[in-house]
Amino acid sequence: MDYRDAFRSALEKVRAEGRYRVFADLKRHRGEFPRATWTRDDGTTQDVVVWCSNDYLGQGQNPVVLDAMKQAIEEAGAGSGGTRNISGTTRYHVELEAELADLHGKEAALLFTSGYVSNEASLSTLYKILPGLIVFSDELNHNSMISGIRAGKREQRHVFKHNDLEHLEQLLAAAPSDAPKLIAFESVYSMDGDIAPMREMVALAKKYGAMTYLDEVHAVGMYGPRGAGVAERDGVMDQIDIVEGTLGKAFGVMGGYIAADAVIVDAIRSYADGFIFTTSLPPALAAGAAASIRYLKDHNEIRVAHQERAATLKARLTKAGLPVMPSVSHIVPVLVGDPVHCKMISDILLSDFGIYVQPINYPTVPRGTERLRFTPSPAHSDAMMDDLAHALETLWVHCNVKRVGGYAA
Amino acid sequence: MDYRDAFRSALEKVRAEGRYRVFADLKRHRGEFPRATWTRDDGTTQDVVVWCSNDYLGQGQNPVVLDAMKQAIEEAGAGSGGTRNISGTTRYHVELEAELADLHGKEAALLFTSGYVSNEASLSTLYKILPGLIVFSDELNHNSMISGIRAGKREQRHVFKHNDLEHLEQLLAAAPSDAPKLIAFESVYSMDGDIAPMREMVALAKKYGAMTYLDEVHAVGMYGPRGAGVAERDGVMDQIDIVEGTLGKAFGVMGGYIAADAVIVDAIRSYADGFIFTTSLPPALAAGAAASIRYLKDHNEIRVAHQERAATLKARLTKAGLPVMPSVSHIVPVLVGDPVHCKMISDILLSDFGIYVQPINYPTVPRGTERLRFTPSPAHSDAMMDDLAHALETLWVHCNVKRVGGYAA
Ligand SMILES: Cc1ncc(COP(=O)(O)O)c(C=O)c1O
Ligand SMILES: Cc1ncc(COP(=O)(O)O)c(C=O)c1O
Repeated sequence: MDYRDAFRSALEKVRAEGRYRVFADLKRHRGEFPRATWTRDDGTTQDVVVWCSNDYLGQGQNPVVLDAMKQAIEEAGAGSGGTRNISGTTRYHVELEAELADLHGKEAALLFTSGYVSNEASLSTLYKILPGLIVFSDELNHNSMISGIRAGKREQRHVFKHNDLEHLEQLLAAAPSDAPKLIAFESVYSMDGDIAPMREMVALAKKYGAMTYLDEVHAVGMYGPRGAGVAERDGVMDQIDIVEGTLGKAFGVMGGYIAADAVIVDAIRSYADGFIFTTSLPPALAAGAAASIRYLKDHNEIRVAHQERAATLKARLTKAGLPVMPSVSHIVPVLVGDPVHCKMISDILLSDFGIYVQPINYPTVPRGTERLRFTPSPAHSDAMMDDLAHALETLWVHCNVKRVGGYAA
Repeated sequence: MDYRDAFRSALEKVRAEGRYRVFADLKRHRGEFPRATWTRDDGTTQDVVVWCSNDYLGQGQNPVVLDAMKQAIEEAGAGSGGTRNISGTTRYHVELEAELADLHGKEAALLFTSGYVSNEASLSTLYKILPGLIVFSDELNHNSMISGIRAGKREQRHVFKHNDLEHLEQLLAAAPSDAPKLIAFESVYSMDGDIAPMREMVALAKKYGAMTYLDEVHAVGMYGPRGAGVAERDGVMDQIDIVEGTLGKAFGVMGGYIAADAVIVDAIRSYADGFIFTTSLPPALAAGAAASIRYLKDHNEIRVAHQERAATLKARLTKAGLPVMPSVSHIVPVLVGDPVHCKMISDILLSDFGIYVQPINYPTVPRGTERLRFTPSPAHSDAMMDDLAHALETLWVHCNVKRVGGYAA
């Protein structure tokens, strides 16, 4: 049996659907964010402006973060050398968990190796701890949440229409009133840039006796007076039972976590395979993340600048007649609506204009809604925005992509 | 409904079984490995020798590794800022993947955020790529492999008795001859220290037309002339279809990977959710790991020293009449056989002798085989071994634990 054939035909399928991915090989230069050097397949290089980083605030370049990391390497070395239980818990982990609990106003927090793992491990473990648990999951929830929620039996999972309170309430009302329930949702949805109706969600949860599980991956560091996320901004932090976040986006490092009541955190700590059976984060990452969180707690002006940059970019692109999707957050998606066009525009932006933005195609977004997704940071200047708007205008004419109106239709 | 009750009773269950885990809060000091400072709950500290680190060779302290990490932070900053596809592929990732492919003599390699994720994501994805795949899995395979293998339907998974070629062959022979098959196993089993019969395994795979998937997490860096693992040592590297490893143990950093034919790697790259939907490793980790791998390729004398230290410790403890389990690797497990005893001995070793070794209890090992698991590194001196042997002798008398003979029974 020739196994290679199977792998080959799996790849052909991806190619045929126009969604074979070629990773852009980048080298960032400290202090010059969002500029980077792109290496082509033939080894030649080109300077580019990165327009699609999730290092939303440029914290990955903040000297406070880098110094904390270097100092931890000096003090404690490279890796942690073990799972959390077997020699892999250090001062840095303990302190970071305390910092995170404080950020979210919770009794405790628990670190995971990534946001992906924190969602998958926590959600799948809740079924073990709460027998008969029914999960109500927003249809646009991230793959990592879905992957955790899939651990439940078919009848334990309900998907509600995106941000649709009426549909959610129907499902909650139809479920047995004495069953344990959990509503799993995100605050900022990263591909559309819309935000969940937080107050209404927690009110529904209360009405039907459900727990709330909130993914603030695209909000931590960026929303709320101390950067705890949209739940902080909207004053409902204490009504979220389990909040989940990442250290790899606005905090600029890597890792994931949950924060909750101590008893919840302790139970997940004790039962979650994806937490237990893996090497813990290197001390340097824990130290860098803690420094970044502390810094952003105290620097609200970065959040203000960030929102201003996003609003400015949206206004410029809209004025240029481009189909900016109706985002209410820092994310600026521009609709293309076709995977081949989308990839082509992105390729030309990179090679001819030195503008790096990945095409966002299926399965990341539904077919027909393929888009370019821009993430302006406080370091993206007016001049860079001019360049971007100019390049897009040129290409929109060139490629004959729909303008405004096309999107509304 | 009071959810806290459910979390509380889940925790009580863990406590009742004597397997509630208290993480030791450690601070390592660069250059002094395996020494560290332990912080007690009351905030007081004590110097300890770490005897259970999986930083097996002390690479987490190697200046070559630390310098590479610091330099990458200087050059490129903290986190990668994106998934591999969306701005998170850097020179460092590309170079590390090339280094890993070279290490294992494969066409390509693929990085994951951890060894756990590499197993879970790769194995679960193989079912998608090879419809009807049947997986044959060693009963002692690591939780991360099991977690990936569970993605298949019940009839697609067979568990064979640990390292039992006869049982494996029975299962292979009973399966439909035209079904795609995969044998999933480890080289060094980390809790017992035994090693799979590599040649026989690959011969069976060949006979029945099965692919091989080998977890070398506890072997990479430590076995084979260049540190590619037991498959290299035993001359069967080219007969392993997919090799999986970690960057978080002997390489001293963090992260996981697979290496295989280019077409296999490309297909897993294109289909594995746990690879696609997560922030990539920070450049500093990729740079540190690459430096560590290169270093260990060229320094076989470290592997020789490592094996000598393990053999010496086994001999000393055996001579002291302690029930050393029959490990053929660098791992030195000593049987206790009771979870409460095991925890008690480990607590006293830490508080009275400054010796840190975690108790290994269920579910990490089967009930009744609770043990202490020592991992001597090249940096563990004769004097440290004397201290350890002395402390264990004292405690074995004190706690009246079975000596040799007890184990055999
Ligand atoms: C909503 C959401 N949750 C979780 C994750 C995973 O976080 P991480 O990148 O830290 O694995 C992502 C993206 O990566 C995400 O978009
Ligand atoms: C056999 C085996 N495979 C995989 C893993 C996971 O590797 P990592 O610690 O890099 O997640 C471990 C231990 O952690 C292991 O023992």
